Amino acid sequence: MTRQKKIRLGMIGGGEGAFIGAVHRHAAGLDGHYELVCGAFSRDSDNNARTGDSLDLPADRVYDSWETMLEQEAALPEEERMQVVSIVTPNHLHVPVSVAAAKAGFHVFCEKPAATSFEETKVLADAITNAPVLYGLAHTYQGYPMVWQARHMVKSGMLGTLRKVYVEYPQGWLSQEEESHNKQASWRTDPALSGASGCMGDIGTHAFSLAEFILGDKITQLCGELNTHVEGRRLDDDGAALIKTEHGVSGVLIASQVCAGEENPLKIKVYGDKGGLEWRQMEPNSVIYRPVDAPYQVFRAGQPGVCDDALSQLRVPAGHPEGYLEAMANLYSAFASAVRSGQTGTADKVPGLHSGIRGMAFIKAMLDSSGSEQKWHSIADNND
Amino acid sequence: MTRQKKIRLGMIGGGEGAFIGAVHRHAAGLDGHYELVCGAFSRDSDNNARTGDSLDLPADRVYDSWETMLEQEAALPEEERMQVVSIVTPNHLHVPVSVAAAKAGFHVFCEKPAATSFEETKVLADAITNAPVLYGLAHTYQGYPMVWQARHMVKSGMLGTLRKVYVEYPQGWLSQEEESHNKQASWRTDPALSGASGCMGDIGTHAFSLAEFILGDKITQLCGELNTHVEGRRLDDDGAALIKTEHGVSGVLIASQVCAGEENPLKIKVYGDKGGLEWRQMEPNSVIYRPVDAPYQVFRAGQPGVCDDALSQLRVPAGHPEGYLEAMANLYSAFASAVRSGQTGTADKVPGLHSGIRGMAFIKAMLDSSGSEQKWHSIADNND
Amino acid sequence: MTRQKKIRLGMIGGGEGAFIGAVHRHAAGLDGHYELVCGAFSRDSDNNARTGDSLDLPADRVYDSWETMLEQEAALPEEERMQVVSIVTPNHLHVPVSVAAAKAGFHVFCEKPAATSFEETKVLADAITNAPVLYGLAHTYQGYPMVWQARHMVKSGMLGTLRKVYVEYPQGWLSQEEESHNKQASWRTDPALSGASGCMGDIGTHAFSLAEFILGDKITQLCGELNTHVEGRRLDDDGAALIKTEHGVSGVLIASQVCAGEENPLKIKVYGDKGGLEWRQMEPNSVIYRPVDAPYQVFRAGQPGVCDDALSQLRVPAGHPEGYLEAMANLYSAFASAVRSGQTGTADKVPGLHSGIRGMAFIKAMLDSSGSEQKWHSIADNND
Amino acid sequence: MTRQKKIRLGMIGGGEGAFIGAVHRHAAGLDGHYELVCGAFSRDSDNNARTGDSLDLPADRVYDSWETMLEQEAALPEEERMQVVSIVTPNHLHVPVSVAAAKAGFHVFCEKPAATSFEETKVLADAITNAPVLYGLAHTYQGYPMVWQARHMVKSGMLGTLRKVYVEYPQGWLSQEEESHNKQASWRTDPALSGASGCMGDIGTHAFSLAEFILGDKITQLCGELNTHVEGRRLDDDGAALIKTEHGVSGVLIASQVCAGEENPLKIKVYGDKGGLEWRQMEPNSVIYRPVDAPYQVFRAGQPGVCDDALSQLRVPAGHPEGYLEAMANLYSAFASAVRSGQTGTADKVPGLHSGIRGMAFIKAMLDSSGSEQKWHSIADNND
Repeated sequence: MTRQKKIRLGMIGGGEGAFIGAVHRHAAGLDGHYELVCGAFSRDSDNNARTGDSLDLPADRVYDSWETMLEQEAALPEEERMQVVSIVTPNHLHVPVSVAAAKAGFHVFCEKPAATSFEETKVLADAITNAPVLYGLAHTYQGYPMVWQARHMVKSGMLGTLRKVYVEYPQGWLSQEEESHNKQASWRTDPALSGASGCMGDIGTHAFSLAEFILGDKITQLCGELNTHVEGRRLDDDGAALIKTEHGVSGVLIASQVCAGEENPLKIKVYGDKGGLEWRQMEPNSVIYRPVDAPYQVFRAGQPGVCDDALSQLRVPAGHPEGYLEAMANLYSAFASAVRSGQTGTADKVPGLHSGIRGMAFIKAMLDSSGSEQKWHSIADNND
Repeated sequence: MTRQKKIRLGMIGGGEGAFIGAVHRHAAGLDGHYELVCGAFSRDSDNNARTGDSLDLPADRVYDSWETMLEQEAALPEEERMQVVSIVTPNHLHVPVSVAAAKAGFHVFCEKPAATSFEETKVLADAITNAPVLYGLAHTYQGYPMVWQARHMVKSGMLGTLRKVYVEYPQGWLSQEEESHNKQASWRTDPALSGASGCMGDIGTHAFSLAEFILGDKITQLCGELNTHVEGRRLDDDGAALIKTEHGVSGVLIASQVCAGEENPLKIKVYGDKGGLEWRQMEPNSVIYRPVDAPYQVFRAGQPGVCDDALSQLRVPAGHPEGYLEAMANLYSAFASAVRSGQTGTADKVPGLHSGIRGMAFIKAMLDSSGSEQKWHSIADNND
Repeated sequence: MTRQKKIRLGMIGGGEGAFIGAVHRHAAGLDGHYELVCGAFSRDSDNNARTGDSLDLPADRVYDSWETMLEQEAALPEEERMQVVSIVTPNHLHVPVSVAAAKAGFHVFCEKPAATSFEETKVLADAITNAPVLYGLAHTYQGYPMVWQARHMVKSGMLGTLRKVYVEYPQGWLSQEEESHNKQASWRTDPALSGASGCMGDIGTHAFSLAEFILGDKITQLCGELNTHVEGRRLDDDGAALIKTEHGVSGVLIASQVCAGEENPLKIKVYGDKGGLEWRQMEPNSVIYRPVDAPYQVFRAGQPGVCDDALSQLRVPAGHPEGYLEAMANLYSAFASAVRSGQTGTADKVPGLHSGIRGMAFIKAMLDSSGSEQKWHSIADNND
Repeated sequence: MTRQKKIRLGMIGGGEGAFIGAVHRHAAGLDGHYELVCGAFSRDSDNNARTGDSLDLPADRVYDSWETMLEQEAALPEEERMQVVSIVTPNHLHVPVSVAAAKAGFHVFCEKPAATSFEETKVLADAITNAPVLYGLAHTYQGYPMVWQARHMVKSGMLGTLRKVYVEYPQGWLSQEEESHNKQASWRTDPALSGASGCMGDIGTHAFSLAEFILGDKITQLCGELNTHVEGRRLDDDGAALIKTEHGVSGVLIASQVCAGEENPLKIKVYGDKGGLEWRQMEPNSVIYRPVDAPYQVFRAGQPGVCDDALSQLRVPAGHPEGYLEAMANLYSAFASAVRSGQTGTADKVPGLHSGIRGMAFIKAMLDSSGSEQKWHSIADNND
């Protein structure tokens, strides 16, 4: 067993009142691979200071702006300075910060979406592709071990030739008007901060990314619609699409934030000619497998029958539930392994630039389709 | 309590090896309102005789053909002859038999779909509309008490203004090629017997009808696709559509018979601005209600909080599951009440001609849409 | 296919306001094997007449008392008179009516419990054992097909050597004081009508009987306690026992009618050294099977993997739920087969005298144990 | 917001191959309140060194024995030395290490059980009671937010007067013989390392402690039995008891490690005269509430209706599952708050000495009862 030196982590965004920043800190802390050494948590200097203080950071590593942070950290001695930067700002900063961080030589672990538009992913790709850094994207649901099990079932032929995919992500938290004090809702529904799509950008991309990951196939066409149900809201809060993949799978993708009363029940079902599978985020430690010729089976995290890729991402025995923070911790820990082994580009088991581009290509196609009278729209293959 | 004379029932179709005929007989028997007095069960005279014998029918009331049966029963004295005819043949006979039976003065209780095409519903409507008989259609799922509870929740405003509907009906039993001995599969996938659509006609109409029933709203537009996944199959075995209603609800309808491993999990979810509901056919005695501002609740058949229309269709106390046969028995028993009270046209609590027309209008729109490059297609309002 | 003549059924008890009589009528009607020809439904002559009328019975076959009915039916010509009598009275009449009916040559199908005390089962056994009639007991839960599947799993060794059984039956409907108008509650908690035990006699016997049926083993010892939680109630409304079987299985039996809010969730779990199983009455079409070395499986009514004894008791395809009435209909239909084939004693697939004796032996042991300072009490092997 | 200085944590036990040590480290890391500074992980010096190295500890803070560690850490300057020691050894060391650590002035966070026998808790109590340190016990399940919700429902009267409690903890992992390489199984079934009880000590105490916590009542009497199902095993692997509380609640406690195929489904159900509740460890983010007069409700972590004590222990929005590690992290974080505020004795929201004594009193009563012919045995009130 080699010495597992802690990796020095910095964070941009994630001050008091933010949601996802704390999630990243919990996730990074869970397996003990990281030490938070610096941050630029908020443009509000009081918030920024308080946050740094509460995290036991020295005042001189709590920076007024992300620009300052990148610059000053880069100037520190190698054994002191931040190695990885977590970007947990509103969406419009994801690309600018990622690009600057990569230029300054820092590994980037960015909250999704990768960008605010498909076009912006080109800027990102240009900066990242040849930089000697890792780029990871927090498509957290791919950190769930049983999502790997689902993917394994497809790959290993347990479903036979694939035919259908249904993926749905119905939330309810935007069923009512954003109130001024709901910071989460307000920036997510502001095009300037969030990007050109609301619901699809926020959670539709998760559904899309999960589907492509489990299928091992590209969604190439869609026929979709976007809706805005709450008066005065400036972005979509709901939508759905018929979808088709490169290899002939058809299905439906649903994402909504006005399914009143729903929490976070992302779900995917895939069917082939030999059987089907189902995975649900709110019961993430199970994959249901329905073969055509035998009783249906429930594969459970840590129990017999589960593939190595799933097992290796578990921490506790079967029946001790692991959840969302553990899923993100799996991404952070896989990223840590890649940092330690000196990799660049994409870290094994962590979604990267490719996922980011795919997600934004999906958004672009949804926006195109929604306003169109034409039935099918292609999803761009890449951002060239 | 008035004397409840048994109603004399005849059956066309439903010989040995048929599925739905036995279901109708179980359902008619459950509440004791009917006495089976005659039948023309099969074109195969041996099958026909054996079926009649096994049902303890006298040989002279077991007829060689439905035409003979209608003619000879009509010639019997009023107090002896059949009052209601159950039509459980393959689809292509539904209209011819319904029309002839209505002309001969018999009440008609017909297995769905009402017809094999939208056009054919005009023939049916012409014959039925002014005939002094009742016409009932076995959209069995509307016989579930908790479907009435779901409808009640919508009507009484528990969901607020409706926004979304998702209805899905994924079966798996046609995942593999029809084998020659599978009588059910073979006629259902033969256009001459089944009609112009396979999966959508067989189960898509159930999903459509259930959605309109619970919403209390018309689905007016759809953008759909139909697929045939099994080589050599002549009708669709799968499909999906984006849908919109007259009053601004949008959503998705899914029906498939190639979701390998799935049984019969028809499900509907409806959301308004105050809450959502969910009903599942495979757990039919519950409706989940998710208000925006309180813990979610599970309304259970026979438990407090359930509406009168649901309660009045239950037979046993809460926690004693009632199922599919009870649902169909509810239709038969409601039909019996209407027969006894001398009604004509539509029986209260039994889907009738209107449901039949709507279902075929839906099929027509699905067929139109599937082959089209145009995104949205209207569903005909009626068959004028 | 032989001609299936309808069997002439009479009913004692089951007038307006009674619960279980209607259940028996639904169940007998479902498969079409019976024709109700006579009844003595209530001591209240108006209720009796109204009930007979509502069931379309001729007035001369609606009798003022069960004694009259047995006498006059016996005097009718053989091809007219009742063949089977359903006894659905309060418990204290089960033995007197069963004995008289058997003496008069009628087959007996009796609601459980067989008797009001272990001692009374001797009277019953003496009358039944050598009479040329069938005796069936409505332990309805043994009519569920998937209970047969559970038994099959045990018998076929899928669980290995058995070790543990947990059976629980927690209802909530007696959580509050019986109100004068609750006919069901009031006779069930009256020792003169119900017998020496309340909850254990009413539902504990179901749990006990189900356990012995699935285990294929005798419960020989128990250490139990009975409680009465509602002030003024004269019988137990709750209890539990540690139990042991002849072949070394140990476990727990729970029955209660004060588990506020619970409906009817009878459940059994059995474990051996190779796996475990679970069956739940409120989701009766599934058996969960947990092998030690593979993912857990859910055996579903009508799906692959299900044993012949289960399959043969199903009416509709997988995914169309069958429930409580179908379970009782299975008992009635199996009883009909035995009647038609001229059997006496016990009908195949119908609990009989033995079950009745076992149930009352269990009650006796529970009553003995509850008042005792001694830990373990034996359950009498039989009533000799 | 005050500066949240990291607390310096040491660990005794938890080397490579151990299970619970890593769990404690994950839990301590999750919220960022601790920094691991030293350890004595294993008597095997290679294992010890490797573990320390993998955790990025300097070699001079990785000690050969727990005695050395306590001694040398005590000698370090106050701002450097360990503040809290986590004890994750086999059970027989819990008391000796706790006592020595308390004497040396370290706060103790000990894996359960507190001791190997009821008698040994006196030694512990003598050492802890007046020492100027905190003592916490890892009854992890009390760290689940929705366990606090359950307790809140009881306390606030939502269930009315309590009547029944059923708590069950059926695991399957000891269904088969311990193999020599299963370190977890082997020490847990060795009386010298584990204590006088196997299954009851390991998991029965969890069930007992959970029940008393949620009820807010003392279990004062039991009638129990212990079994050993696997040949050659030296301790119980299974048991059950009828139980009674100080305030008249009765019920059943089940714990087993031979329920083949089961994972970790600890479950508790409580009923009063106004309603019941149910909580399940494998779906820990829900509490089911069944009022007698309304549909049943599911209270969900982070959703409306949940009490402050539950909400304050959550990290992510509703629908993002939190699990077992988060539950233990809640204990660690509450312990951290108590450390920072200078408390001694018991930390708010962390089980302490009292829980430890209660658990061992329960084990003692189970052992007494199991070998006795007397029905009821008292559970000692305390260890005086």
